[in-house]
Amino acid sequence: MTAKRDAPRACLLLAGMKERETEWLHAFSIQAPDMRIIHEDEIDAPENIDYCLIWRQRPGLLARLVRLKAVFSLGAGVDALLSDPSIPEWLPIIRMAEPGLTEGMVEYILWQTLFHHRRIWELIEAQRRKEWRPHNYPAPWDRRVGVMGLGVLGKAVALKLAAFGFSVSGWSRSAKEIPGVLCYNGRTELASFLETAEILICLLPLTVETRGILGARLFAQLPPGASLVNAARGAHLVEEDLLEALRVSHLSAATLDVFNEEPLPPTHPFWKHPRIFITPHNASITDPETAIAEICRQIARLEGGLAPEHTASRARDY
Amino acid sequence: MTAKRDAPRACLLLAGMKERETEWLHAFSIQAPDMRIIHEDEIDAPENIDYCLIWRQRPGLLARLVRLKAVFSLGAGVDALLSDPSIPEWLPIIRMAEPGLTEGMVEYILWQTLFHHRRIWELIEAQRRKEWRPHNYPAPWDRRVGVMGLGVLGKAVALKLAAFGFSVSGWSRSAKEIPGVLCYNGRTELASFLETAEILICLLPLTVETRGILGARLFAQLPPGASLVNAARGAHLVEEDLLEALRVSHLSAATLDVFNEEPLPPTHPFWKHPRIFITPHNASITDPETAIAEICRQIARLEGGLAPEHTASRARDY
Repeated sequence: MTAKRDAPRACLLLAGMKERETEWLHAFSIQAPDMRIIHEDEIDAPENIDYCLIWRQRPGLLARLVRLKAVFSLGAGVDALLSDPSIPEWLPIIRMAEPGLTEGMVEYILWQTLFHHRRIWELIEAQRRKEWRPHNYPAPWDRRVGVMGLGVLGKAVALKLAAFGFSVSGWSRSAKEIPGVLCYNGRTELASFLETAEILICLLPLTVETRGILGARLFAQLPPGASLVNAARGAHLVEEDLLEALRVSHLSAATLDVFNEEPLPPTHPFWKHPRIFITPHNASITDPETAIAEICRQIARLEGGLAPEHTASRARDY
Repeated sequence: MTAKRDAPRACLLLAGMKERETEWLHAFSIQAPDMRIIHEDEIDAPENIDYCLIWRQRPGLLARLVRLKAVFSLGAGVDALLSDPSIPEWLPIIRMAEPGLTEGMVEYILWQTLFHHRRIWELIEAQRRKEWRPHNYPAPWDRRVGVMGLGVLGKAVALKLAAFGFSVSGWSRSAKEIPGVLCYNGRTELASFLETAEILICLLPLTVETRGILGARLFAQLPPGASLVNAARGAHLVEEDLLEALRVSHLSAATLDVFNEEPLPPTHPFWKHPRIFITPHNASITDPETAIAEICRQIARLEGGLAPEHTASRARDY
């Protein structure tokens, strides 16, 4: 716990943390004991709040904090913060980039890639029918995995999949170079990226450009029998297009961690679909210990007059 | 296909290969075209057969092959060959150790370890009930995986799990040293190995000593809530003891690739158990290309008067 000595004396508001609040308060008390942590329902002097760590924000909350210096997002995605008109444009919004969150996502995607690589739905269906049906599967280097989005998470995921032995392609908005990963960028190269992607991983930021990108047109460009893993945002996916692509067996199966409406309503058809595997938006969880170290590091930068890192950009919409 | 030039001119019998025979015949014709491959049902001159590659052997078959120099097992386990009294004691029995089989097992065990690490049965049950129930899970370094058996497969598996970030222990008959793996050996150290193993992986050879080792006494020494993955032999497991350990929730779940009776009979209670995940003895499949290269290498050793490698030992029973 070496963070103690360096932890700044700033005043930080915890907002929208819900059931995880107690855990975070405890972690701050140990790792940053000099920081004053304010609870969302106990804001007596909004002008004293320097920073805010936020998960599900209450619209308009931040507009009251007149001396706020920066907002920390608890997650990697900042689409909800960027679309809140009450947040002043000059206020730095910092995306979470901490090793715990990244490692958790790498673990989740490798798990789900193996899950689809080994066609687990065939094993589950065979078990339900009590049928002994050994099936073949290719070596990982004969399996092409496509990663959409090559930011902090996407890059770490692509590197790990390649290190494991899979053939990996990546697609991003701007050109990237990642050792061992075949990188494509921009709309013009999307078709070439998609046509070999047998397992498609979505880790894109949610922007005007990427909203609804996982739809009929994109699915049609994937090889027949492809799988989808969406661990980005529910709004990337056109839900009825996925159901249709599965119905006609163009896609084999999907793992979804995120949904347009969360919690996913009990009446939603995804719950009962035998080829859709649901995880409840917990693919990866921000780790308080490593995240607080990162928050303290960023606050120290700001207090020292340096620009924060991993800030969202309104111009590029993430 | 550089194997062509070095491939020996020996005569090799393919026995008990079943539905995979065509694939292997084709691979031999490309990789070792000078080798004479004999089909099990077409043995006209048994005295001409030098070697045998065998999967499910017909008892007594090998006794007819009077000039046999060695037997290659298609799999890593040789318990069925060692227990066949018609095989002369002096005949070398060679266990399969080829990169394709090893890589496949590493992939399967990492997949299943992530599966149990993330407690997939909770996700499956929640989905069946249409319940949104995000659950926490520890970092991989806070999860202890125990690997029983540290031969070619077990060692490769332990190294990969450790490289991924899991805390890994290993247990074997004789003392081993594997970097990054806490190694235990012998009966006296079994209890210490078991008491921290949250996910127990069985890759042991089947011997008189290990038959039925996965039973009530061993399960009782595991931490409550542990998981089991058996990818070795069905006879390692006392089936009713597993059902009982799951019933009282001392064990959480199990993945089984191997069974006392294969194919697993349709009436077997494992099929319908919600915490038992069945794969039909295809955790890893011997790869004809890399395996034939290995067989040619071993035959060249034998023909050159050298001792073969990876031979089974009747003294140690594997």
